[in-house]
Amino acid sequence: MKNPRDENELIRRIERRFPALKSKVLRLRLGDDAALWPPRPGYETILTCDWFLEDSHFIRGEHPADAVGWKCLARAVSDVAAMGGEPRCFLLSLALPVELTGKWLDGFLRGLRRAAQALRCELAGGDTTRQERVSINIAVIGEVKRGRAVLRSGARPGDLVFVSGIPGEAALGLELLKEAGSTQRRARGALQKHLYPEPRIPLGQLLANEGLASAMIDVSDGLSSDLARLCEASGVGAVIAPGALPRLKGISEAKAAQLALNGGDDYELLFTVKPQERRHLKKSLRTFNKIPVSFIGEITKGTKLRMVNAEGTTEELLQSGWDPFRNR
Amino acid sequence: MKNPRDENELIRRIERRFPALKSKVLRLRLGDDAALWPPRPGYETILTCDWFLEDSHFIRGEHPADAVGWKCLARAVSDVAAMGGEPRCFLLSLALPVELTGKWLDGFLRGLRRAAQALRCELAGGDTTRQERVSINIAVIGEVKRGRAVLRSGARPGDLVFVSGIPGEAALGLELLKEAGSTQRRARGALQKHLYPEPRIPLGQLLANEGLASAMIDVSDGLSSDLARLCEASGVGAVIAPGALPRLKGISEAKAAQLALNGGDDYELLFTVKPQERRHLKKSLRTFNKIPVSFIGEITKGTKLRMVNAEGTTEELLQSGWDPFRNR
Repeated sequence: MKNPRDENELIRRIERRFPALKSKVLRLRLGDDAALWPPRPGYETILTCDWFLEDSHFIRGEHPADAVGWKCLARAVSDVAAMGGEPRCFLLSLALPVELTGKWLDGFLRGLRRAAQALRCELAGGDTTRQERVSINIAVIGEVKRGRAVLRSGARPGDLVFVSGIPGEAALGLELLKEAGSTQRRARGALQKHLYPEPRIPLGQLLANEGLASAMIDVSDGLSSDLARLCEASGVGAVIAPGALPRLKGISEAKAAQLALNGGDDYELLFTVKPQERRHLKKSLRTFNKIPVSFIGEITKGTKLRMVNAEGTTEELLQSGWDPFRNR
Repeated sequence: MKNPRDENELIRRIERRFPALKSKVLRLRLGDDAALWPPRPGYETILTCDWFLEDSHFIRGEHPADAVGWKCLARAVSDVAAMGGEPRCFLLSLALPVELTGKWLDGFLRGLRRAAQALRCELAGGDTTRQERVSINIAVIGEVKRGRAVLRSGARPGDLVFVSGIPGEAALGLELLKEAGSTQRRARGALQKHLYPEPRIPLGQLLANEGLASAMIDVSDGLSSDLARLCEASGVGAVIAPGALPRLKGISEAKAAQLALNGGDDYELLFTVKPQERRHLKKSLRTFNKIPVSFIGEITKGTKLRMVNAEGTTEELLQSGWDPFRNR
């Protein structure tokens, strides 16, 4: 498709790709100064936003445009899942070079629309401008039943620590993307996970609505770093057993352990449960057998983070996940 | 102040600069996966976002850091004012180079906090990351009484066109900033307007709550372009008399006319009023004598935009305001 003539034409092109959902979430969408949204009685509004920047969060030549579109929304929605809420609508801020307003933009909007439909999160509005490199910012508006949101700060000593999915899988997918020949069968799941992550909305809602989780966070920067954030917010420590995590396949044991603890971009849920709720959790998850949930450790007094290694001794768990102001 | 050690320290530094407002707008602020906000019964939620990018919207060496902080929030809040609503809280997305996380960030946060207090718009959360140039995105959440929002699409033939303030003043301020010696007395007002614009929240609320405006938009890209947007959304044309606009002082008549019609960044309100409401408007504005409001033209049938020039003849009004995908 040809590049648009001006900003109005660019906006109209985006509008056409996002017909209003049947849900009629919004009273006023694109094309005015702002969007109008009627909140539901009995619910609180969840507000969150996420950067998705070229060369930081994706590489233009390596990541397909439609994966960029999918992932920028999925990772922002993951923060809503981590509160136990459901997404309702989002604002798209898009800065891009003029030469990307044709084919690349088409692919991007295709992926974004697929994510919007899959996650039931409607495009409410946004802002477009021109820049040498692609910058994307997504603000998501969600809802959660009043008083039901699960915070990071509710973990107490003795609570059990659980994580969904296969931590490190997305990081493995990124490694495979960088290698040639990443189409091998064993790689497909991990590559899919890296390119098209699925925020755990139904699991988060189950844990919130049934009062099962005492604290919750999504694993976006790596298990070690996000566990540290949850513990800091709760004023507690933790001890985990990396051996209890699902084993990443097709790579060495050492590499697998490193990715599972420190790999980013999984968008799985890390949560704590009171010991007396363990049976309740097990029962609830039985009717919810879509994704694995692993018991990996326990919340402790103090503020230390430790892990039980293969020899059965404990050592300090270092926070080695992604930090834009520390790493590189 | 020294640069922060990691992202957590950077976030804590931002938190300390934004103590919670007494209004207690938010149930949960910074430091969790997302913010939680209890909407007021009887109100609709307004959602809007705006880019503020280095080299597009500001120049690091020319614009003081605290003006960047003020203006990024003020221009996003202006979209809420243009609906007739009031801002409630905002999300700050900030990408910046590590070397700006000390003194520059301090100045930026000082200006941002001043704006947040002046505009009664509380920091709810956000996202920080690292980038070579400064990118800012602000998402504002506001409220408006149910059914009272003023849209762009309500103008009808015969409605009268009004604009607040002195269109072109901010563009004049930018020209003076680029020149040396901009400290001359005549320049101060315009420079202030360019660096620290004030969105017209009380005026917008007055026009919405009293049912005075049939359509409204904020003048952000230039009067000619924003009038065209309002007319397009309403399916109407307009004829305006540039001679009815307040005269910009200290520059040639031709230059003043050009800036008044096409200069951006004013964040004034452009609105239409039914002829039978003109006396009501006049009366309401009498008790509201803070900013000038000028009657500048009329909405017409068709879709043409025209202006009455100094000779009394009409000619086409060209849309020559700012457009990132057309200009340069």
